[in-house]
Amino acid sequence: MTIDSLAAYGLACPAPSTTHDQVVLGHGSGGKLSAALFREQFLPWFDNATLAEQGDAAVVGLTSATIAMSTDSFVVKPLEFAGGNIGTLAVHGTLNDLAMMGARPAYLTVGFILEEGLPIDVLDRVVRAMSERAREAGVLIVAGDTKVVERGKADGMYINTTGIGMIDSRFRPAPARAQPGDAVVVSGPIGAHGMAIMAAREAIGFESDLRSDTAYLYPLVELMNEALGESVHVLRDPTRGGVASSLNEIAAASRVGVLLEESAIPVPPAVAAACEMLGLDPLYVANEGVLVAFIGDGRGDDAVRAMQSHALGAGARVIGRVVSEHPGMVAMRTGIGGTRVVDMLPGDQLPRIC
Amino acid sequence: MTIDSLAAYGLACPAPSTTHDQVVLGHGSGGKLSAALFREQFLPWFDNATLAEQGDAAVVGLTSATIAMSTDSFVVKPLEFAGGNIGTLAVHGTLNDLAMMGARPAYLTVGFILEEGLPIDVLDRVVRAMSERAREAGVLIVAGDTKVVERGKADGMYINTTGIGMIDSRFRPAPARAQPGDAVVVSGPIGAHGMAIMAAREAIGFESDLRSDTAYLYPLVELMNEALGESVHVLRDPTRGGVASSLNEIAAASRVGVLLEESAIPVPPAVAAACEMLGLDPLYVANEGVLVAFIGDGRGDDAVRAMQSHALGAGARVIGRVVSEHPGMVAMRTGIGGTRVVDMLPGDQLPRIC
Repeated sequence: MTIDSLAAYGLACPAPSTTHDQVVLGHGSGGKLSAALFREQFLPWFDNATLAEQGDAAVVGLTSATIAMSTDSFVVKPLEFAGGNIGTLAVHGTLNDLAMMGARPAYLTVGFILEEGLPIDVLDRVVRAMSERAREAGVLIVAGDTKVVERGKADGMYINTTGIGMIDSRFRPAPARAQPGDAVVVSGPIGAHGMAIMAAREAIGFESDLRSDTAYLYPLVELMNEALGESVHVLRDPTRGGVASSLNEIAAASRVGVLLEESAIPVPPAVAAACEMLGLDPLYVANEGVLVAFIGDGRGDDAVRAMQSHALGAGARVIGRVVSEHPGMVAMRTGIGGTRVVDMLPGDQLPRIC
Repeated sequence: MTIDSLAAYGLACPAPSTTHDQVVLGHGSGGKLSAALFREQFLPWFDNATLAEQGDAAVVGLTSATIAMSTDSFVVKPLEFAGGNIGTLAVHGTLNDLAMMGARPAYLTVGFILEEGLPIDVLDRVVRAMSERAREAGVLIVAGDTKVVERGKADGMYINTTGIGMIDSRFRPAPARAQPGDAVVVSGPIGAHGMAIMAAREAIGFESDLRSDTAYLYPLVELMNEALGESVHVLRDPTRGGVASSLNEIAAASRVGVLLEESAIPVPPAVAAACEMLGLDPLYVANEGVLVAFIGDGRGDDAVRAMQSHALGAGARVIGRVVSEHPGMVAMRTGIGGTRVVDMLPGDQLPRIC
């Protein structure tokens, strides 16, 4: 669909809505107000021919016969925080999940659940962030949906994104592919996202140094694919539950043990200070711009070098290795020479972190 | 992944949770409780090898280089009603959107937003319905996500589903393809879903005769593709906003007029009675198991016959035609011989109907 035909449908050059500065129930009716919301708030930002066709589904072309598909709902509280907002997370989070399967992200869908009374300017900022982050990633937002619920039936807004990415058949990292001897590598310092959310929520006085690390991780994956190919056994972005939970999941799926070196784990001073103040362990704090890689064939240092060639991976380092002992368990050699178990989080440490 | 390897991961033969009969915040933590919820409540029902792999994304194979992709969030109130529940809608709704683009539905993702305190037995019934409806449709639920929000921050549960379907390059119905002369066909009686929801919500005394029409519509699409191929110009399932809104959208997208015959529109007596009692127009009431088709080449009656060969299309009939007059508008010849405009719904008639 061209810009001309868009104009013919009354979709081009939308003027900002002058009648509503808050979301109203009618915006979810499927009628004129819903159409206006789409035309005025979403289409100008998520501008692409596929979305503009407004069919019941988007029709898209693929370049591989195998795809990765991932879905995530975002309920972060507050909606905006240092380093991003719920829209930033909704784009990065789902694209990163695709990247962790080795897939090159291509298309996203977006489902909004809006609470009656949500200020339209908040919605604007969230949608703009989604548009910008998707454009940076070279990904199209091809289909969407909006529902509105009454005051008190949501918390401002919730967003679901679902993405698909193209699979390179020669590059298939997976949680079950870790092997004894693999190096465990992180792409950078941990804990920033979770502590930035806590700072935004609690106003506990260390806000200025804490910013979410939210970032699109596929560029690091591509660098590792080029440099290391099949030596990349496992990739994972340690979001909810943090590095500790991701490593436990991988240890369980691959039936191997993981041994970490506490002194090697990069924790920014502001994160360490905030964690100490709140009694939290940075290993369990959510990240949104960090990946963990399990690298075989003795090539852990090559993976570190590959990631360090990109700004996002400047702080990459080896933090441990896979062992055949204690399969399914993660252990850590501590600074004072002992070893402790790093278990999966039993319950909720930080609800609504993403 | 085989059953053996599932068992090795501790995923097979899950026992029902004995520790929780309600959703708690920890179920959304990304830790042990989240894993238990997945293992106990979701995996047994959505049982397939792709989902069981529990990667960050599902990896799936495709049989066409062009796919349809659709997303929908479901916020229906109440969660359960005569004829189905929110899970039934979440499966049928997204699969039907794919079918309306002529695509054969193949894969679904599911995102749950659960309110703390939701009874686990409600979740069980919803998940079971999703599992059964997906199986009937031959569709795999390959990826999922669960978030939990505090009491008072949702209304029991919200569900997003996103689906992909395979496109047949010779069969491409689209909202912009209506042409003057096309017959406008409905697959069956209208208004049942919306009025069943109203009955469940309001307890207004006509419950027994009203059941949601929620159904999987691809079988009707396949029959029309086989019988009529490219003569099928437009397909749409008139959900939120009803038949009137769908026809207005098509008239606008194709820049044609639509002329309906009021006497031809099938409205079940119970729906008509309930609409009259509540002051609603059945043309604006949501359907979840009805499609509208625009058929060219003088083959409207063939489309009716094709649909009538399936139980879902037993009530199919021609209800109007496309005209070159009044482009972008829908008009209706009424029972008493006049003609009135059938406009798009201005605001919210029935909030949270799906």
